[in-house]
Amino acid sequence: MIKNKWDIRPIGIIRTPYKEKAPYQGKFSRDPCEVEVFEEYEEGLKDVEGCSHLIVLYWLHRANRGVLQSHSPRDGKLHGVFATRSPSRPNPIGLCVAELIEKRGRFLKVVGLDAFDGTPLIDIKPYFSDIDSP
Amino acid sequence: MIKNKWDIRPIGIIRTPYKEKAPYQGKFSRDPCEVEVFEEYEEGLKDVEGCSHLIVLYWLHRANRGVLQSHSPRDGKLHGVFATRSPSRPNPIGLCVAELIEKRGRFLKVVGLDAFDGTPLIDIKPYFSDIDSP
Repeated sequence: MIKNKWDIRPIGIIRTPYKEKAPYQGKFSRDPCEVEVFEEYEEGLKDVEGCSHLIVLYWLHRANRGVLQSHSPRDGKLHGVFATRSPSRPNPIGLCVAELIEKRGRFLKVVGLDAFDGTPLIDIKPYFSDIDSP
Repeated sequence: MIKNKWDIRPIGIIRTPYKEKAPYQGKFSRDPCEVEVFEEYEEGLKDVEGCSHLIVLYWLHRANRGVLQSHSPRDGKLHGVFATRSPSRPNPIGLCVAELIEKRGRFLKVVGLDAFDGTPLIDIKPYFSDIDSP
């Protein structure tokens, strides 16, 4: 039973200092970034301020969806994209565990993102160490 | 510059013992599950066997995309969906960090999923503790 349409809906926008070059991984950046959630989804943010860390999912709008193997910056070798964190992959979903610094209405100030400025936000989940850390 | 289409492409299928009821979170389950990657994406699995844990993303095809607040099983209270792991959310993307037990061609045996049997697979990423754990 497939009820849902297979479309991704932008729920907000990510603002970062990264215009042309982004960090290898958000974890290694301490630049403050802003996550704006669109007004129509603001209700979904209730109690987000209680989370110290958020799993931020975004749509890698510049990535190449046709790529199945790529060289990893970790070892320089060619791997399948499912064994790397390459942005280019069939469904270009980016994922960072970011630290929540402050919530002001529908604007979140976070640290730890690697997305280009203007990247569409697609989901936010609370990070729970008991379920998200092996 | 938005180059990509906003469509999600199923890259495989998740087979679990959960037909009508799934565990609260995959982390709390030890049932072996199977992740099948479709033939056309098999090349993307090169070297996945080197990963002990995988971030498995799937499309929660039974979820309600119109929900913005829901009661969390963690405390029974009403929260915004972005402060909970509710499957119902504007972009119903499920996420589990699963343990990879075995790779046989394009079939992965894993432990730690909470998806219903038949859930569409949309991405696999290697879990790296240095970037995915705060």
